[in-house]
Amino acid sequence: MNHMHVDRSLCEKLFQAFHAPGALPSGGVTRLGYSDTEDEMHAIFRREAESLGFPVTTDEAGNSFAVGIPGAPYTLLGSHLDSVVDGGRYDGVAGVIAGLLVMKAMRDAGSTIPVRTAAFRCEESSNFNHATLGSELITGKISMDELEKLRSRDGMPLTDIFHSRGLQLIPQHIFGLLRYLELHIEQGRFLEEAGIPVGIVSAIAAPRRFTVTIVGMAEHSGATGMELRTDALPAAAELILEVERIGRREVSHQSVATTGIVNNYPNVMNVIPGETSLGVDMRGIDRESLRRMERALRRAAGMISARRKIPVRVERLSAREPVPMDPSLLASLRKAADALGIRTMEMPSGAGHDAMCFADICPTGMVFIPCRDGISHNSREYAELSDLCAGADVLLSFLSREI
Amino acid sequence: MNHMHVDRSLCEKLFQAFHAPGALPSGGVTRLGYSDTEDEMHAIFRREAESLGFPVTTDEAGNSFAVGIPGAPYTLLGSHLDSVVDGGRYDGVAGVIAGLLVMKAMRDAGSTIPVRTAAFRCEESSNFNHATLGSELITGKISMDELEKLRSRDGMPLTDIFHSRGLQLIPQHIFGLLRYLELHIEQGRFLEEAGIPVGIVSAIAAPRRFTVTIVGMAEHSGATGMELRTDALPAAAELILEVERIGRREVSHQSVATTGIVNNYPNVMNVIPGETSLGVDMRGIDRESLRRMERALRRAAGMISARRKIPVRVERLSAREPVPMDPSLLASLRKAADALGIRTMEMPSGAGHDAMCFADICPTGMVFIPCRDGISHNSREYAELSDLCAGADVLLSFLSREI
Repeated sequence: MNHMHVDRSLCEKLFQAFHAPGALPSGGVTRLGYSDTEDEMHAIFRREAESLGFPVTTDEAGNSFAVGIPGAPYTLLGSHLDSVVDGGRYDGVAGVIAGLLVMKAMRDAGSTIPVRTAAFRCEESSNFNHATLGSELITGKISMDELEKLRSRDGMPLTDIFHSRGLQLIPQHIFGLLRYLELHIEQGRFLEEAGIPVGIVSAIAAPRRFTVTIVGMAEHSGATGMELRTDALPAAAELILEVERIGRREVSHQSVATTGIVNNYPNVMNVIPGETSLGVDMRGIDRESLRRMERALRRAAGMISARRKIPVRVERLSAREPVPMDPSLLASLRKAADALGIRTMEMPSGAGHDAMCFADICPTGMVFIPCRDGISHNSREYAELSDLCAGADVLLSFLSREI
Repeated sequence: MNHMHVDRSLCEKLFQAFHAPGALPSGGVTRLGYSDTEDEMHAIFRREAESLGFPVTTDEAGNSFAVGIPGAPYTLLGSHLDSVVDGGRYDGVAGVIAGLLVMKAMRDAGSTIPVRTAAFRCEESSNFNHATLGSELITGKISMDELEKLRSRDGMPLTDIFHSRGLQLIPQHIFGLLRYLELHIEQGRFLEEAGIPVGIVSAIAAPRRFTVTIVGMAEHSGATGMELRTDALPAAAELILEVERIGRREVSHQSVATTGIVNNYPNVMNVIPGETSLGVDMRGIDRESLRRMERALRRAAGMISARRKIPVRVERLSAREPVPMDPSLLASLRKAADALGIRTMEMPSGAGHDAMCFADICPTGMVFIPCRDGISHNSREYAELSDLCAGADVLLSFLSREI
C-alpha cells in the first residue's frame, strides 16, 4: 500500500464545493462558529462525504464526522469549517479536505478504513471570544461556568444558541480514538521561506488572553483643559505600545503578544473617552516566557494606572499551557514523508488548533502546509492545492504503514 | 423696568418638562440631532411656549421659535435641545429655558417683547460628526457638498433623513435679527473655581477635526512573528499619545487636542489589526496655536509612517476660525450684570455653540453659567437652576436697557 497518492482532481472538486458560504466582496469569507453560514459548510461536508460513500454522523455539539468503519476504533483526521471575520478559505477547510482525500484513497486502494474525518465547530474565537469550542466540548475541556459566560458578537448567550439549535452544552464525550492527526495551513512564513512543502508540528503554543479595562471620565473635549482630564484612551495607547514591546522582547522564545481589540466609549468626536477596553492575546511554547509576558502586562498596567491616576483593570480570560505533540507520532510522520521523498521540517505552531484538545486523550500530531506570504485570517490567504495534497499524502503514507 | 427677575418656579417647571425624552439607566440622556427623541423635545418646547402665550413657528431646517411680536425685528435668544450620547440635561436646554423665562418676565412686566427664543436642531456632532447643523443651515454656513457627505451614526445619509422629514437642505435664511444672545453651561471649571455665577464669553474656540487612517496587514495573531507584522494599532497608539502631547504643549494658549474616536478592524482577539482610524478634535481661540497643532499632527503622522513603514493618512474634516463675540455687547452684558449686583468674569468658550453661526450676521454674545465639577457631555452633568436664573436675569436686565 506504499506510495499511494491522494486524488488531486478530487482535492480541487472539494475545494470548490466549500467555496461559496459566507463569501464577501473582499474575496474573503466570514463563517462564524455556530452560525447559519457554518451550517452551510457542514451541509456541504455531509453531501460530499456521502457522495464519496462515507456516512456522516453529527454529535451533540454539532461537529460532523465522515465514518470509514462504523463501530471500530479509529484514527481521527480533522479540522474545522468556521472562519474569522473576513478570513480565508484554507484555514481549517484544508484539514477537512485532507481527511476526505485520505479516506477516499484508502477506499480506492481496497484497504480497510479505520479512519474518520472530523469537521469541528467554532474553532476560531471570532464569534464567542473563545477558540476550539466544538472540540473542547466533546473532550471535556471547558466547564459549565465558562460556557455560561460566552456571548456571541451579537450579544447572544451561547446557552440560548445551543438551546435553539437543539445542541447539548454537556455533550457525550468522543471515544474510540486510536490517535488524532490534523493537517493545517501554517499561517506563518517558516515553510515558505525554507522552500519546504510539509511541516511536522512539535508543539502548539498556548494562548493567554486578557481584557484590560480603563475607566476615565467622559467630558466635553472642547471645554475641558488638558491638565484637568482623565482620558481613558491615551492610557490605553500606552498599554497597546507596551504589549508590542513585551512581544518583541520575547522574540527569541518564539512568543508573540497582540492587542487585537479596542473598544472605546462613547467614541464620538467631541467627548473625551470615558472608558476604553483592550483585548490582549499572548502566545508561546515556552511556559517561562508566557509567565514573564503576563507579569510584564500586569506591571505596565499598574504603572500606567499610578502615573495617570486612572483605574486600569486586567482580567485574564484564559490561560492555556503549551501542548507538545506525541514524539513517536512525530518520528513516524517524518518517516512516512521520507518514504515519499517529501521534505519536512519540525516546527512549533504559534496558532491554536483543535489538536490541542486531543493531546491528553490520545497520541496527537499535526502537519503544516505553507500558505503564501504567511498570510492567514485575511481575505488574501492562499495555499497551493499541490501542497495540500503533499500533506495529505504524508498522512496517507503514515496510515498505510500503521494499519 | 430695571431689577426685574425671571420666575424661579417657572424655571423648575420648564426643566421638569424637558426631563423625560431619551432618558437612560445611567441617569443621562441620549437625544441625537434629527432623531425622534429630539422631535419629542421640540414638541415639549412648542407646548410650553404656547402655554406661556407665545406662538411657535418651525423653519425649513426643523428649528423651533417662540415668537414675542410677529413681524417685528427681534433679539434672538437661543440654544439647542439635542444631546450627545449619554449626555446631560443642561447642555443646550438651559439656554432655551432662559429664553422662555426672559420672554415671560417681559410679558409679566407689561413690556413689549421684540424677542424670539430659538430651539436649534442638532448642535452636537454626535449623530453626523458635524456640529451646529440646525443653525448653520439657516445662516448659510454649510455647503451642499458638505451636506451630501453627512451620514448618521446608523449610516443614513442626511439627505434621506431630511427628505423623509419634509425638511429642506437649502432652507430659507433667518432674517430680522437685531442681535443673538445665548446662555449656556460653561462645560469647564473656571466659573466654579472662581466662585462666580455668570461668565461673559469673549470668543468661541475653533474646532479643527481630522480622521487619521492607518492601513496595516490583518494576519493571524498567533502565527505571525513580531518582526514580520504590519500592525495598524500600535501606530495608532503612538498618534493618540502624540495628540495628547500636542494639546499639553499648547495649554498656555488655551488650546486642547483630543482623540475621541478609535475604530479598529477587524477588532477580534486573534487577528493583528489591519486598519485603525482615529477621530481627532483640536480647539483653540488662538489661530497660531491651532496652526501649530495641525502641523504637529501631520508631522507626527509622517514620522510614524516612515519609522513603522505603514501608510498613515490624515484627512481634515473641518477647520473653523475662532469667533470673537461683539465687544460692545460684551460691555453691555457686563453692565447689565453689574446693575443687578451679579459678579461676572470674561472667558473664552472652549466648546462650539450655535452662537458661532450668528457672529457675522448680527452682534452676538454669550453668557455662561457654572456646571458642577465642569462635567458635561456626561450623565453626571449638573447645574444649579439658581445660576440659570441669574444668567437669565442678566439677559433680561440687558434687554430692559436696550429696548
